[in-house]
Amino acid sequence: MKLDYLFADVAALLPEGVRKGVYVGVADGKIVWVSDEAPEECGARVIRRPRRVLLPGLTNAHTHIAMTAFRGYADDLPLQAWLNEKIFPAEAKLDARGVYLGARLGMLEALSCGTTAICDAYFRLTSVAKAAKECGIRANLCNMLIYFGEGAAPDSDNSFREALEVLEAYPDDPLVTADMGLHAVYTSGPASWRKAGEFARAHGLRLHLHLSETRQENDDCRKQYGRSPTQALAREGVFDGPVLAAHGVYLDDADRELLRTHGVTVAHNPTSNCKLASGIAAVQALEGIPTALGTDGMASNNSHDLFGEMKLCALLGKVRAGDAAALPAASVVRMATEGGAAARGKSGCAGKIAVGCDADLALVNFDTPALSPCYDVLSHLVYAATGRDVELTMTAGRVVYENGEFPGLDAERCAAELREYCKATFGEQL
Amino acid sequence: MKLDYLFADVAALLPEGVRKGVYVGVADGKIVWVSDEAPEECGARVIRRPRRVLLPGLTNAHTHIAMTAFRGYADDLPLQAWLNEKIFPAEAKLDARGVYLGARLGMLEALSCGTTAICDAYFRLTSVAKAAKECGIRANLCNMLIYFGEGAAPDSDNSFREALEVLEAYPDDPLVTADMGLHAVYTSGPASWRKAGEFARAHGLRLHLHLSETRQENDDCRKQYGRSPTQALAREGVFDGPVLAAHGVYLDDADRELLRTHGVTVAHNPTSNCKLASGIAAVQALEGIPTALGTDGMASNNSHDLFGEMKLCALLGKVRAGDAAALPAASVVRMATEGGAAARGKSGCAGKIAVGCDADLALVNFDTPALSPCYDVLSHLVYAATGRDVELTMTAGRVVYENGEFPGLDAERCAAELREYCKATFGEQL
Repeated sequence: MKLDYLFADVAALLPEGVRKGVYVGVADGKIVWVSDEAPEECGARVIRRPRRVLLPGLTNAHTHIAMTAFRGYADDLPLQAWLNEKIFPAEAKLDARGVYLGARLGMLEALSCGTTAICDAYFRLTSVAKAAKECGIRANLCNMLIYFGEGAAPDSDNSFREALEVLEAYPDDPLVTADMGLHAVYTSGPASWRKAGEFARAHGLRLHLHLSETRQENDDCRKQYGRSPTQALAREGVFDGPVLAAHGVYLDDADRELLRTHGVTVAHNPTSNCKLASGIAAVQALEGIPTALGTDGMASNNSHDLFGEMKLCALLGKVRAGDAAALPAASVVRMATEGGAAARGKSGCAGKIAVGCDADLALVNFDTPALSPCYDVLSHLVYAATGRDVELTMTAGRVVYENGEFPGLDAERCAAELREYCKATFGEQL
Repeated sequence: MKLDYLFADVAALLPEGVRKGVYVGVADGKIVWVSDEAPEECGARVIRRPRRVLLPGLTNAHTHIAMTAFRGYADDLPLQAWLNEKIFPAEAKLDARGVYLGARLGMLEALSCGTTAICDAYFRLTSVAKAAKECGIRANLCNMLIYFGEGAAPDSDNSFREALEVLEAYPDDPLVTADMGLHAVYTSGPASWRKAGEFARAHGLRLHLHLSETRQENDDCRKQYGRSPTQALAREGVFDGPVLAAHGVYLDDADRELLRTHGVTVAHNPTSNCKLASGIAAVQALEGIPTALGTDGMASNNSHDLFGEMKLCALLGKVRAGDAAALPAASVVRMATEGGAAARGKSGCAGKIAVGCDADLALVNFDTPALSPCYDVLSHLVYAATGRDVELTMTAGRVVYENGEFPGLDAERCAAELREYCKATFGEQL
């Protein structure tokens, strides 16, 4: 059997749980060998180190990765001041180069933390796509429709136009995928929601949107349309194609039933929901609804480390339920892996270590003081590990991060270029 | 001026805020120079690196550090099953060597994350003290009184005896300090509380206790004594000397007024309070009460990284208040530094970078992708940095951690020894 890479004698997170002493072989971008036995004569680069844990690569199912340029730019502010006085004016100054530099550095950070795929929403998508190709991260990209007129259309709005641009520039690309985006019920009206859904289905795109992030959004929607955001969108056919709904902090039973019936994936963003004081989502109530984890943008987090989201997700789940057994580690890890694959529409062939799946993998070093002793690998992944414990990340069978280095990219230069841009454009402090 | 160390041209967190281009000199365990100018002819080891931030060393104001041996041993369990079926039986097997090995590895982890002092509660205190001396961490140590008889006394209970042992073995030690400990209102009665307080005051010791950690504790206390835990303890004079009260999740206005009047320091443990589903403390309401941060033990966290506590403290503060401006970064950093000094009874001479203060310092590397760009150093410390960004830790003027190494200690061997002990005693997984 001819392999490109062989992870030898690792503890692997398999669909049935963690197993020690496993051999995982990779060839042509796919996982082709998973066994307690080593394959014969593999010709691969063999990665064999003690106390290593091999995970499916994590998916950040909701981010605005170019906002890495605004990391820490506007913290500890009330939501409206944060948006209107800081973020929107700053975004107005962010040109294509800023988007590219911000996205690139955010992607490097994400890869170094074991994240191999992102579902991203921003603007100037070809700049984001360029960064994804260079860094080697899988990226579902959308521009989320914001339209205060009577009904948006491809010739009147960037969201449609940018989706078509990505589709045309990256047909059948292994890394870059075009999505359609719809910002939220409060930034466009029913005619536009319907158009966005129709457009997505017509072009075979997934639709990425914000849903019930704040109590205010729900209250205003009920006032204006007499129904919840979920119900209002459903009425316009928005959920008739595949949808990724971010946040979902304020969903009721009827909303959840709708999402369940339509196979919507929810991206839970625990840090952002706390940092912007939106609320604590009832993640446990999402049973039967594929659920993934997201960081949201770097002005509301301010880290791309999904290990932090896993820990906070478990902690909030317990304290919200008043039950220390709620949201156990295994469920949370599943959200970051299999849930992430669902968010990308790849449930069958990604987010798990199994023969035939995409070779998107993260190798975590458990041979450290902070991960010793180890009674339970899953517990450590959620409660004790951080992205800094990831020592190797592989996307589509290619090593894109290893021990602080990104093959073919100079991370220090990437950071310095973004800092220089930010200093000139927004005035950096340090 | 003769210095041992000079931190040159750093961004320093001074009492008035962050200042760039600062020179901080250390001699004989103290900070002796803080200025925009370099001292002349200092003869020191000069530490000059770009984009470094110098902090006062952090204090972990509530931990049971030997429980590092139980990291991840019992997660996702209801509180009573966690305690009675897992933790108590495991602790019964933990001998002096286990306490020493667990404490030592926990201390190395803490130091590597910029923590220079801990307020610790456990048993076999001389084993914990030995580890603290070897690792070079400041440690206030107590054994918390648990006594179900009529009134504990020095000859009938380990808490008194162990406090005296530490006092005798470490008189005027720069690192090890004896405290008295009182577990909680539900594990002893009023006569014992009174004895513990009297004993602490007679020996000039601080008293470290758990207070209103759970709703159940409060309910039971009101049922049994007709008053809240704070009021019940105050009635027995417990707060007449210096007290460090851990948790304080369920305090009312009258409780807070009592704590304020008596100058009690509260140690807030956000991760543990979530992980055990105890609740979210109203930290903002503690105004006027010195407040510090703690990790609690490694079976309820499971990390000694106080940067994680800072972030969670800010996030929970916001979401609890429904206000994104609540608990801003500066307040939270103050809890981990000045609040920690208060927890140790060292408000005047520790927890800040000022001439005459203890040279307990942490140097953080901001020259990384995950901390770029930087508009606000305090924001990054709370929302973006982790303990893994600390590259040098100094306690009492001595470098005890630098770039993964602990001078004089082999961390890999320390981790391996604890793992072997845990494997033999409790059955490790990995």
